[in-house]
Amino acid sequence: MGIDADRLWNDIEALSRITEPDRPWTRRSFTPRFLEGRAYLERAFRAAGLATRIDAGGNLIGRREGTERAASPILIGSHSDTVPSGGRYDGVLGVTAALETARAFAEAGVALRHPLEVCDFLAEEPSEFGLSCVGSRALAGELTPDMLAMTRPDGMTLREGLRYVGGDPDALAAAARGENSIAAFVEVHIEQGRVLESEGIALAAVTDIVGIARWRVTVGGRADHAGATPMAYRSDALVGAAALIRRAWEMANAAAGDARPLVATFGQIAITPNAANAVPGEAALTLEARCGDEARMAGFCDALLAACADELAALRVSARAEKISHAAPTPCAAEARAAIHAAAGDLGLSIRDLPSGAGHDAVWISRLGPVGMIFTPCREGRSHAPEESMTRQEAYDGARALARTVRRLDAALA
Amino acid sequence: MGIDADRLWNDIEALSRITEPDRPWTRRSFTPRFLEGRAYLERAFRAAGLATRIDAGGNLIGRREGTERAASPILIGSHSDTVPSGGRYDGVLGVTAALETARAFAEAGVALRHPLEVCDFLAEEPSEFGLSCVGSRALAGELTPDMLAMTRPDGMTLREGLRYVGGDPDALAAAARGENSIAAFVEVHIEQGRVLESEGIALAAVTDIVGIARWRVTVGGRADHAGATPMAYRSDALVGAAALIRRAWEMANAAAGDARPLVATFGQIAITPNAANAVPGEAALTLEARCGDEARMAGFCDALLAACADELAALRVSARAEKISHAAPTPCAAEARAAIHAAAGDLGLSIRDLPSGAGHDAVWISRLGPVGMIFTPCREGRSHAPEESMTRQEAYDGARALARTVRRLDAALA
Repeated sequence: MGIDADRLWNDIEALSRITEPDRPWTRRSFTPRFLEGRAYLERAFRAAGLATRIDAGGNLIGRREGTERAASPILIGSHSDTVPSGGRYDGVLGVTAALETARAFAEAGVALRHPLEVCDFLAEEPSEFGLSCVGSRALAGELTPDMLAMTRPDGMTLREGLRYVGGDPDALAAAARGENSIAAFVEVHIEQGRVLESEGIALAAVTDIVGIARWRVTVGGRADHAGATPMAYRSDALVGAAALIRRAWEMANAAAGDARPLVATFGQIAITPNAANAVPGEAALTLEARCGDEARMAGFCDALLAACADELAALRVSARAEKISHAAPTPCAAEARAAIHAAAGDLGLSIRDLPSGAGHDAVWISRLGPVGMIFTPCREGRSHAPEESMTRQEAYDGARALARTVRRLDAALA
Repeated sequence: MGIDADRLWNDIEALSRITEPDRPWTRRSFTPRFLEGRAYLERAFRAAGLATRIDAGGNLIGRREGTERAASPILIGSHSDTVPSGGRYDGVLGVTAALETARAFAEAGVALRHPLEVCDFLAEEPSEFGLSCVGSRALAGELTPDMLAMTRPDGMTLREGLRYVGGDPDALAAAARGENSIAAFVEVHIEQGRVLESEGIALAAVTDIVGIARWRVTVGGRADHAGATPMAYRSDALVGAAALIRRAWEMANAAAGDARPLVATFGQIAITPNAANAVPGEAALTLEARCGDEARMAGFCDALLAACADELAALRVSARAEKISHAAPTPCAAEARAAIHAAAGDLGLSIRDLPSGAGHDAVWISRLGPVGMIFTPCREGRSHAPEESMTRQEAYDGARALARTVRRLDAALA
């Protein structure tokens, strides 16, 4: 297909050098450094024969026309912004793999039925305005006036920020694309986890971008003097919390082999009085469940409390939960997943299914049409950190799989 | 025996009124309010026929001679200072019960073989100098020059504080009493726990003032993104901590029926990163074991880690412990415990054995001779708080038991 591993790697390295020098790798959205990266990409897009523009939502889009005038575009791409002290591959791999795909198609004179749009979405990472996925929200028609009024520490509003990067906050309605406005969207991304590396598998087809439900769980016991209170008189909230923590672990592990596995995490805990000589009277915890299956995710906390009811009663403690947040899962489209698997087969690359535990622009782009994601291995699961790492071969395999997937989707889709 | 419940209760109430008016019940050592309480007690001691003095260690001592010139004294008493916003009975019950005992003996013309010393120990509660049990330490010869140099927030040294309450920091050697210098010491105190109230038992004979061992326990896992890390790839330090917490609870409960029961408490916990979306990478906990049996107390943490070793390994986490502190238990003397049980029998009062989970002056006085303690019920185990409460009958029973115990010890001891 003509994907050039060195050329791809050169783009990745060139973009990585566009960083705040004293805290690599940092290229924050809405900064001069970000515009410098955008300028690099725009030149490269044009050199690849793409017609470039910044849409009203601040997305950099390079377009290649297809042979069928009525066909909706196939979107490929990711984002070029980073978190502070982030990595060189999160987002950048997806943008450069899409660029290299377009470049290879141009060189080889590949004619696609569908238009191809290479997209660098604006501000996928949480921006200084406190908002993430700014560009993909705009494409979905979900960048609201409230959001445009958000300000960053120096007082700039997101409305002004959009203009700064070349967007147009007054033309957002025109930038929004409706349902069925795209033939498909495919993004290549590092896994940000350890599964592919640990199992020696080249690629994953993402099954879903998991939903996230969070609860505040409060265990109520009775604070008592640790010296003067025999065990039989205690209602130890931390012991009750321990029962919940152990059970949540067991329940999530039992579901680990499911087609849509669930993960459960007690990531925060605070107890009172929190003194060496006091029986804990209350424990407050945050429970998070992530799953591609919304019903199992939403019901996890109730199921946990029900499973522990007898044990908590025997421990003489109470437990109650309050939902903090709920984000529905985004399933990847069956046709995209099939094309990705077939592409891996074409290339002789090993592949497995995996859910994406982190959010991506695909959550918003799924409003426009079918979405798919290709994961590549990365080192030790490290991401959003300077240590984020992958090999040239892994980047190459990701880009090759993307190009093949586009060819297969172009042939298969209406 | 002539113990007068109303007279006793009147002393308790009179002392309670000597409080900082805006934060009852507060009569801090080394303050004018404390001296006011001491003046009340000294008048009452004298009215009971006791010869009073302040010893070099600042203890108020009222002495009644015995019939045998060579006999060592029987000490009874407690302390009249309080914690800030403390209760009306902790310490005061023991001082007033001892006073009432001496008063009743005087009225009834009871002749004891041993001298009787009624003692209001100086500053049993942690003082503003940062030191507790000041007076009983002095009696044990353990009030060191380092301690005398301790200062309170207004700059006063403990050396100056001792003079303020009528002690003599330069004569401490003379105030110290050696081994076998007393025939016995007996103190009445509220339980500061809920056992007697819950079981409807009038008195407890304290078996030991328990030892306290504390460890810093660190559970090591691996911090990971909660979304991108399947359960099978996690090393969750909080799940490991939960295993330890549950096991410690089970081990201590299994030992609850022992003659010297052990209590174990994880009273503090902190995890990192402590974020809703992060698998906990480390958990730091404080483990405390209290027991009258020093070996079982000292070995508890190792026994716990050994019992959990397989479970922690299966959870892919490590655990290590570091000893923070170790205070040996103080056993109460068999002859004192026997006399207390016999006294309860004489009076038809129900009694059981109980360890004391809190420290008392008896820890230091045990250096001078056999010690015993009598616990009375109190409400809901509340102590060191304004809600601390007991009934007139409970105070009366405690004082009656003390007087009977003194009579029995006087007869039984050399």
